[in-house]
Amino acid sequence: MAEPHISIDIVISGCTIITMDAERRIIEDGAVAIRGERILWVGNTSELPTNWKVKQRIELSGKVLIPGLVNSHGHWAMTLFRGYMDDAPLETWLQKAWKVEAAFVSPENVKVGSQLAMIEMIRGGTTCAADMYWQYRTTTEAAIQAGFRMVNGPSFTEIAGYKGKKSTEYPEALEYLDTYQSEPMVHCCIQMHSTYTTNESMMEDAGRILEDRGLLFITHASESRSEMELVHQKYGLTPIQVLERAGLLGPRSLLAHCVYLSNEEIDKLAETGTSVAHCPSSNLKLASGIARVADMVKAGVIVSIGTDGPASNNDLDMFHEAQLAAMVQKGITGDPTVLPAEIVFAMMTLGGARAIGMGDQLGAVEAGRLADLAIMDFDAAHLTPCYDIYSHLVYAAGSADVCDVVINGRVVMRNREMLTLDEKEIKQRVRKIADEVRKL
Amino acid sequence: MAEPHISIDIVISGCTIITMDAERRIIEDGAVAIRGERILWVGNTSELPTNWKVKQRIELSGKVLIPGLVNSHGHWAMTLFRGYMDDAPLETWLQKAWKVEAAFVSPENVKVGSQLAMIEMIRGGTTCAADMYWQYRTTTEAAIQAGFRMVNGPSFTEIAGYKGKKSTEYPEALEYLDTYQSEPMVHCCIQMHSTYTTNESMMEDAGRILEDRGLLFITHASESRSEMELVHQKYGLTPIQVLERAGLLGPRSLLAHCVYLSNEEIDKLAETGTSVAHCPSSNLKLASGIARVADMVKAGVIVSIGTDGPASNNDLDMFHEAQLAAMVQKGITGDPTVLPAEIVFAMMTLGGARAIGMGDQLGAVEAGRLADLAIMDFDAAHLTPCYDIYSHLVYAAGSADVCDVVINGRVVMRNREMLTLDEKEIKQRVRKIADEVRKL
Repeated sequence: MAEPHISIDIVISGCTIITMDAERRIIEDGAVAIRGERILWVGNTSELPTNWKVKQRIELSGKVLIPGLVNSHGHWAMTLFRGYMDDAPLETWLQKAWKVEAAFVSPENVKVGSQLAMIEMIRGGTTCAADMYWQYRTTTEAAIQAGFRMVNGPSFTEIAGYKGKKSTEYPEALEYLDTYQSEPMVHCCIQMHSTYTTNESMMEDAGRILEDRGLLFITHASESRSEMELVHQKYGLTPIQVLERAGLLGPRSLLAHCVYLSNEEIDKLAETGTSVAHCPSSNLKLASGIARVADMVKAGVIVSIGTDGPASNNDLDMFHEAQLAAMVQKGITGDPTVLPAEIVFAMMTLGGARAIGMGDQLGAVEAGRLADLAIMDFDAAHLTPCYDIYSHLVYAAGSADVCDVVINGRVVMRNREMLTLDEKEIKQRVRKIADEVRKL
Repeated sequence: MAEPHISIDIVISGCTIITMDAERRIIEDGAVAIRGERILWVGNTSELPTNWKVKQRIELSGKVLIPGLVNSHGHWAMTLFRGYMDDAPLETWLQKAWKVEAAFVSPENVKVGSQLAMIEMIRGGTTCAADMYWQYRTTTEAAIQAGFRMVNGPSFTEIAGYKGKKSTEYPEALEYLDTYQSEPMVHCCIQMHSTYTTNESMMEDAGRILEDRGLLFITHASESRSEMELVHQKYGLTPIQVLERAGLLGPRSLLAHCVYLSNEEIDKLAETGTSVAHCPSSNLKLASGIARVADMVKAGVIVSIGTDGPASNNDLDMFHEAQLAAMVQKGITGDPTVLPAEIVFAMMTLGGARAIGMGDQLGAVEAGRLADLAIMDFDAAHLTPCYDIYSHLVYAAGSADVCDVVINGRVVMRNREMLTLDEKEIKQRVRKIADEVRKL
């Protein structure tokens, strides 16, 4: 009797695979087989089993296949305000941001702004990203619709949003979780804007839900000098100390920015398994400062990369962030060997996966993991010749080199064409919103 | 009698023009008319004279037309060693560089490496660039052949190059100048590698030629701590002091890097009209340090942008450099208002033109100037919406957004296709050289 044929959804072959698995294999003329939402097999094209029934074959000779990038911090719908408040002091930036947000972050606008963000992220090889913003239900729905993997959840804050609405309320948060916790494309979390824009009651609410549900917690922490002062005035402590006291550090906590950390705090993050989302563009552009990433990595802190929002960046380009991270740390430490390319590429992939608590599911091209992949064209002049792929990925490649993207086993971009989002219409709608923003 | 028709070579119309002229006009639905190698007319598309006989019309609705970018410092043929010596201490970097250079910088290899560099630069909107390398005659010929505007000239140095050959000799330098000084696409200069790799007799030779011929002078200066120490040991002075004593500062001098400058030296550069090529990627990546660009601009120093060589960058992308320049200065000064986007874009264009002594010929879209232009597609997701074009040019745009390039009135890239260089063949040839480099 003949062996039963195995049914495979997609086989991608003929490319160089950067696995980011435990052995950090680079497979020349590699192939990946995808069944459902997962990677079933990774190996050499020549070793592909011949008895497979394959629905879709993608031959990518000369291309480079990488794990999809994980953007661990952002405010997606701020695409609507991209470049609207540049080169200004932080106070001016915040005032402008809060003014346009109060007027424009309606559910409809946040939806289209977030759709634009997903287009930009997919174009840049990002397959999973965290968002922190108002109208998080709308954004979650938009991500599910687009087939984009999202980290999202209710966010506690005292800042007034659209029409003056402030924080998530406790019952509203639970309702969101009840709806989306079993949704495969949404990794639910509880968020808190920061220790200076919340109060102790909010921290308690957040903490209670986190404990009950075993969720990821995300907050901004130690981003700027003014935050450090505000938190000191309010609590007589640093943001990290406030979070520790509230029981909000640990292996399911992800802190964005962490520009101002003492040696003891770096050790504390490492000990507790707390992760960091490093956002170099935003920290530089808003003149917040430069995070001690080299020291964090040395201490064993899990560091991931975030773009932050496109109003302080001004794009959602993980390659820009990685290059900045690698270069700036060398420049300020005076040591050209810190944060070598492979370490930084790990931060863009596995580091992000670990930071969001999915270190065994995402971030590597390996059988059993979710099929989140990006395929890059390395034929470009600026990538010629290629002695070291990691080096090119961090120091020379860019979003424009990404040509195909797979998320959860589904091809969402093919030959640079978006398959799940109507790019033309979304851009037109965002431009119309921008026309209104200009009038404010 | 009918008015005689004016013959025009190219009319580009329907685009937004960033003029960078004295009034810094932004012309919506603008048009540019080119006759021969110069811009004849700039204005609104609706005001285009109707009695012109136009050879080529390019309609670019929705595109953004900018002055061609000027890359004021680089070592083009080091594309051959792109990514070959990363994340290493400077000594290791230099040893690897000098070893591969001694073996591989033959005229044939330098030619093809430089051709690859020109392809990359044209793709990124660069229309004029300075080079400092061995086999400068070959590179000059390659630039003329490609229709690329080049700043080049003999370079004095004690470093051994291909087959041990060191510096340019005095007669050889004169011969080069006699051949190319009247060549329209070549802006001739005299170069000196640095004060630590030359001697006083070379400085005298360079100074004598400069005085006789009225040429631009280019050198590396005050790039790294080790250079500062070496020069102090050799002369008891800083590199800037050595150059001043040798009469090599002034309005026709362009110094690359200038990371380590005292307040007095910044004032000295401003007073003497000496220009600087700021190379942020290279300075960060090699951990040389961070130049005081904000202070230089404040003091009135002419600052331009250079990519440096692609072995320490690892690309020739002026948009990367501009973004880094703007962001890093904010981050280290703690002031988000320093180096605003418009100032940085001026550094990429007019600043570069002034630095190479062509401030009245290049760097702006204005009647009478040379027709060096780049056209960008602003329809991309990462450039949507657009509130401020300067902001997008510096913080969000990239080389991949450039679609058409005109140099000296000649279209050298159209719809991202190279018209004067055989990209496919050049890349193949570079890859073959890289195969040999790997064996070394």
